[in-house]
Amino acid sequence: MNIIEGGVTAAQGFEAAGVEAAIKYQNRKDMAMVYSRVPCKAAGVFTSNVVKAAPVRWDQEVVAHSAYVQAVVVNSGIANAATGRQGYDCCRQTADKAAQLLGISPDAVLVASTGVIGNQIPIDRLLAGVEKLAESKVDTREAGTMAAEAIMTTDTISKQVAVQIELDGKTVTVGGMCKGSGMIHPNMCTMLGFVTTDIAISKELLQEALSEDVVDTFNMISVDGDTSTNDTLVVLANGMAGNPEITSKNGDYEKFKEALHYINTTLAKLMAGDGEGATALFETKVIHAASKEDARILSRSVIRSNLCKAAIYGHDANFGRFLCALGYSGVQFDPEQVELYFENAEKRMLIYKDGVATDYSEEEASKILASPEVRVLVDMHMGEAEATAWGCDLSYDYVKINADYRS
Amino acid sequence: MNIIEGGVTAAQGFEAAGVEAAIKYQNRKDMAMVYSRVPCKAAGVFTSNVVKAAPVRWDQEVVAHSAYVQAVVVNSGIANAATGRQGYDCCRQTADKAAQLLGISPDAVLVASTGVIGNQIPIDRLLAGVEKLAESKVDTREAGTMAAEAIMTTDTISKQVAVQIELDGKTVTVGGMCKGSGMIHPNMCTMLGFVTTDIAISKELLQEALSEDVVDTFNMISVDGDTSTNDTLVVLANGMAGNPEITSKNGDYEKFKEALHYINTTLAKLMAGDGEGATALFETKVIHAASKEDARILSRSVIRSNLCKAAIYGHDANFGRFLCALGYSGVQFDPEQVELYFENAEKRMLIYKDGVATDYSEEEASKILASPEVRVLVDMHMGEAEATAWGCDLSYDYVKINADYRS
Repeated sequence: MNIIEGGVTAAQGFEAAGVEAAIKYQNRKDMAMVYSRVPCKAAGVFTSNVVKAAPVRWDQEVVAHSAYVQAVVVNSGIANAATGRQGYDCCRQTADKAAQLLGISPDAVLVASTGVIGNQIPIDRLLAGVEKLAESKVDTREAGTMAAEAIMTTDTISKQVAVQIELDGKTVTVGGMCKGSGMIHPNMCTMLGFVTTDIAISKELLQEALSEDVVDTFNMISVDGDTSTNDTLVVLANGMAGNPEITSKNGDYEKFKEALHYINTTLAKLMAGDGEGATALFETKVIHAASKEDARILSRSVIRSNLCKAAIYGHDANFGRFLCALGYSGVQFDPEQVELYFENAEKRMLIYKDGVATDYSEEEASKILASPEVRVLVDMHMGEAEATAWGCDLSYDYVKINADYRS
Repeated sequence: MNIIEGGVTAAQGFEAAGVEAAIKYQNRKDMAMVYSRVPCKAAGVFTSNVVKAAPVRWDQEVVAHSAYVQAVVVNSGIANAATGRQGYDCCRQTADKAAQLLGISPDAVLVASTGVIGNQIPIDRLLAGVEKLAESKVDTREAGTMAAEAIMTTDTISKQVAVQIELDGKTVTVGGMCKGSGMIHPNMCTMLGFVTTDIAISKELLQEALSEDVVDTFNMISVDGDTSTNDTLVVLANGMAGNPEITSKNGDYEKFKEALHYINTTLAKLMAGDGEGATALFETKVIHAASKEDARILSRSVIRSNLCKAAIYGHDANFGRFLCALGYSGVQFDPEQVELYFENAEKRMLIYKDGVATDYSEEEASKILASPEVRVLVDMHMGEAEATAWGCDLSYDYVKINADYRS
């Protein structure tokens, strides 16, 4: 697997665009399009929130019932959630408009929205935006970057990644972009993610690969514990790489899964580290848990704890908070058996063992917690399962961003 | 039921004290004692965190196996959690010392701690504190107040309440105090609570009344979603009121439960409103839910959402966040059927109905959210059950307090 530059336009046959449509704010790119010159197999995972935004309900229909997908239209001004029938009509009109301009069927168009909940999208501006996108889409790396920028809300950096693998002598490319900074506790996460690939694969296996992988990637991050109404992750596969179509779980399928896992992990970590107000990526790895599910629950409990997050922000080696968050996770264990480490890229430090604090240096521990990427390693001494969860620290700026978000 | 002044010394036969023992900080009261001149039936509920502080393990033993309890010793400097065998020995020594000074049995002494996790308590200072407490305890209202002050950590106000009821012509008094500001998501909640009463009641019914009541009181508050290692709520009943002992669920039992519910509700709301950094009490009442458990889950999901809490802090009528938090609670419902109101003591405003925002005034809504007590009322239109949960807003100061807590 080679990591390459680029994002959604890295794979063959994909075009993209990002434009200013003034959906809610002026002078910023707020609409994006991803387009494939040929029809794609599509797979998707969507928010588990029972309050689902209109575009989520639209996309669920399309992914379930359309034979193929060829375009995605995104706006980052208004979430189009809690908008009733008018909101759903807005999705239909967007798809109709894009279909007409691109010469494809409306049910081959996915739509996605992120932003304020409860407002209606000004449909005229949205449709004008679709026109601009259809005119300007191209297959350059820059176009992919512009699309990645156009889907940002409170994100501070655009997020994209691409890799290449070889399958039967053919080069297969997988690229993706995502956005997400607040209301991030995916299950699925306002997290929007779009992955494009030129691999040839059956729709069933594409969906299975995606559904399996999100459990250990996007579903393992949390900025604030709030699972959005809009979370959407879509993979489009257009087959242009020319590899023998993957229709069974063979070696090629495993290679693809590995590539997809890298894409999803990278995007998920980028989101967690760019959480609203974050100054650090806060990773928790649980090893030797009794089961995979236990490991997931334990690691997520730590990274979503406000007190642990505030301790990371304050570079405070207040290890009791981490132990406490493990303790209320719902998983049963013997606290005396647990070992807890703080670590960064250079150093690992044992903090807690045999039921008590070790004789660690507060100063050294605080230094570790001041790193841009902080990891808490937890050894449960119970079994062989492990899992990693990613979050961020809790800063003044998180509060500021969210107390003022709409103004 | 009459609400009266006072707290743990309101009921007949109870004495209290609060003193400075320099457990962790200088120049503040940090140890408290509650003492009954006659033996008490004791009931208790404790943290569900599997990482239980030493005093919690001690108290669970005492409540389960001792015939009676006569004293409680509390310190508010160090939590005595994650302290291994040394921590448990510390509880034993505290009980031994108190027992010797008070002329009672060590297994009639409860202990409680709150503060930093992972540090050992300086035992000499603790035992010296017990001596001061035993010398200074008296049955005045002021002594109750001093005890309530001595158990505070990041609390900004001391918390106590008392009521009186009549049972067969006898006046029965129930009084209580509690502390709790951060790491508050009781299940049970560092929340410490102590309720004293002179009622005559069997130990079994005392425990049953307490266990039933916390489900709708202390377990319905959250400051930060972190369930502490130390949560403890204890009720001591010394029988001095002279009422016929309650040994069945008769009318007297119901009257007592009502009094206990008032005490617990008042203390729980005081804690929520005094959450770390809080500027407002944030209440969510869910009505017409399909079941009581659904109503509890829905209301708790809203009050623990960081985004909802930040919206309250910002006085931002961003109702989508409240709807979103209901949606990811795990309870199934039709968002189109839900009605959502903001209200304060003066006014109720319908914000969301039929799947969309009403034509409400942002300015008026923001005024409601600027009240010291803000309520979100949710009508599910599904059944007859209701529940109320209490939390607080999320402010810069919460982050400040928790990033700097140990320094």
